[in-house]
Formats: sequence, structure tokens, C-alpha cells
Amino acid sequence: MPSALILIADGTEEMEFTITYDTLVRAGVTCQSAFVHDDEFVSPVAAKGSRGIRIMPDVYFEPDASGPDKFDALIIPGGAKGAETIAKNSAVQALVREYLSQGKLVGMICAGSMAALTSGLPKQPLTSHPGVKNYLESDFSYSEDPVVVSNNLITSRGPAGTTFPFAFKLVELLCGLEKRNEVYGPMVFPPGTPW
Amino acid sequence: MPSALILIADGTEEMEFTITYDTLVRAGVTCQSAFVHDDEFVSPVAAKGSRGIRIMPDVYFEPDASGPDKFDALIIPGGAKGAETIAKNSAVQALVREYLSQGKLVGMICAGSMAALTSGLPKQPLTSHPGVKNYLESDFSYSEDPVVVSNNLITSRGPAGTTFPFAFKLVELLCGLEKRNEVYGPMVFPPGTPW
Repeated sequence: MPSALILIADGTEEMEFTITYDTLVRAGVTCQSAFVHDDEFVSPVAAKGSRGIRIMPDVYFEPDASGPDKFDALIIPGGAKGAETIAKNSAVQALVREYLSQGKLVGMICAGSMAALTSGLPKQPLTSHPGVKNYLESDFSYSEDPVVVSNNLITSRGPAGTTFPFAFKLVELLCGLEKRNEVYGPMVFPPGTPW
Repeated sequence: MPSALILIADGTEEMEFTITYDTLVRAGVTCQSAFVHDDEFVSPVAAKGSRGIRIMPDVYFEPDASGPDKFDALIIPGGAKGAETIAKNSAVQALVREYLSQGKLVGMICAGSMAALTSGLPKQPLTSHPGVKNYLESDFSYSEDPVVVSNNLITSRGPAGTTFPFAFKLVELLCGLEKRNEVYGPMVFPPGTPW
């Protein structure tokens, strides 16, 4: 069964976190959320999302337990403050490079795409929240597509509006198109939904 | 500023809860989540969602602090087990009737629409998760539209796929169409999204 590590921090966009985690679980992906914190960390019970929803992480982020030997995908949600905490974490940056070099998936959505820059990834197609486009467009081949697949780096615009197509692309890549369609049907999207 | 009370229980569909709460907060609605529990309640820190995400409620559900004198809307998300706990709670049932009789909004999505039946609401247009349609279709004018507005009872199919249009309809009714459009734009839905 494929597995995914989904990072979370104070200020993570809770829809981006929840839609991705939930949709992957529906596809049979074993998900673990890991709380990334900065130096002032004093063991909070939950991450406080960008709109105030408090989500309890499955574990606290430990680099040694977060590698591509343990998970098939590493996922970084957006939300300005949360994405900043995650993207500036040097252990996360090292993991991003390690997942990609070992052929595992890395997903970034919204401001989470800033981790591509802080991790020093080579120039390649990428998208992000429009608000951080100017930080990324000179170092990447910037796209405004809802979801961009660049080998095993999957990025999405967010905020929120592109999370479903992002999650379904991850399901497709981790579990196959048949599983994607099996999960999609029962979620009853309105007719004409473009994903 | 409008306000909404959003119920949550073990087994609540976490996307339905989170998308609704987050989108309403984006529109400036003051949201409070309240944990509805059954008799075996032993003060858990968080509600465990239908796909395992643990969400800390803002408060524990207290009928006396949950009335239409306190909030402009009462919202019941789906998720089979969570919706069952909420819908069978007699204090919730009384609140549903009270909100509607006082002209306040009641929103139900997915299996949350079962609360219309348990609250003894009169026959009117309604939708729900397809899986509970057979419990509802004889007592209501059952519709398969993504969102159904019947005076101040707003129902939505779910699961998950119709939560954005449900949340935007609530924003429109609580805050007006202009605010709805103001919140919609920055969420960057892919072109052609039918809501």
C-alpha cells in the first residue's frame, strides 16, 4: 500500500491539508501528518490552521523518521505562515532533494511551492499560489496551470481551489488511474467539474 | 458580523467540515465548532474524522450556548458516523427546529441531511448523500442538485464534491453576493469550475 507523509505547521491552509490527506486515505494511501515547528516550539497539541481550525498531527516531524525509505510521497501544503515554517526548515529541504533523487513523489501546493526554491531544486516547470509567483518565476519555468507535473515533482496553485485536482493527481501517480476513478465517483462532484 | 455554529463529532467528514468552516471564515463569518458526543463521552481532545484526521473543536456542544440568539447559522456536516451522532441528538433536533422557526439558516450536507428527518421537519425540497436517499425520499421532495435551498434550510449532496458550492451558498446568504465573489476569486478554482 502506498504511503505519504504530509507536513503541517501553524498557519497551514487547512483545506489544502485536509482535502489532500482525506482523498489519499480514500484511495488506500497510508497517510501520516507530521508537525513542523520552529524554535519556539513548546509541544502544542495541535497545529492552528490559517483560518483557525486546530488539527492534531499524527506525529511531530522527525527527519530520521521521514525519509523516502519510509514513505512514497512527501507533501507540503500551503498557507503563508505554515509554508514559510516548512520551507525554511533545512531538514525538510534535504528531504525534498532526497525524495526526488530517489524517484519518490514530492507534492507542493500554494505557498508550499516555496520549498522548491529553498530546497535549491533545478529549474523546471512549477506553479504556486499567485502571491509567491514573483519569488519563483526567475528560478523555475513558471506555469499557471492548476497542477503541474515535472517528473516526480507535483505542484499546484492553490489556494484551496486546485486542491482536489492536486490530490487526484497524487492518487493517480501513487495508485493508478483506475483507483483515481474509483475514489472520484462516490465524491459526487457537480456535473461539469473540470477534474 | 454574521456567525455560524458548525457541529462536529467522531466520524465527521473532515473535508466537509473544513471547507465549510474555512470558506466562511474567509468571508468574515465568526465560526465556532462544537463537539457533539454520545453517552460514552470521556473528554477526548479532538474529534476523529471519517478519514482519521483529528480536529480539535472550539468548544464542546452545549445546547444552551448554541441557540439562534447566539448564531446566524447552524451547520451539520456529513460523514456517516458523525452525522448519525449529531442527527440523533435530541438537543440538536430542537435547535434545528428553533433556528428555522426564527428565520436563521440551517445547513446540512451529505449524511448530515438525516437531521432534517430526525428533527421532524415538514416535507420540502432537500438533497443528501446518495447513500441515505432512501431514508429521505418519502418524507421530502428529494432532489439530486448539488445544493438545494428551501427557504432557510440549505442542503447539499456531498460527500465532499459539493462542499465548495454549499459553502459559497452559505456565504452568499449570510454575507451577500458581493462578499461571495470577493472570497471566490482568490481561491483560484480551475477554469470551468461550475460554482
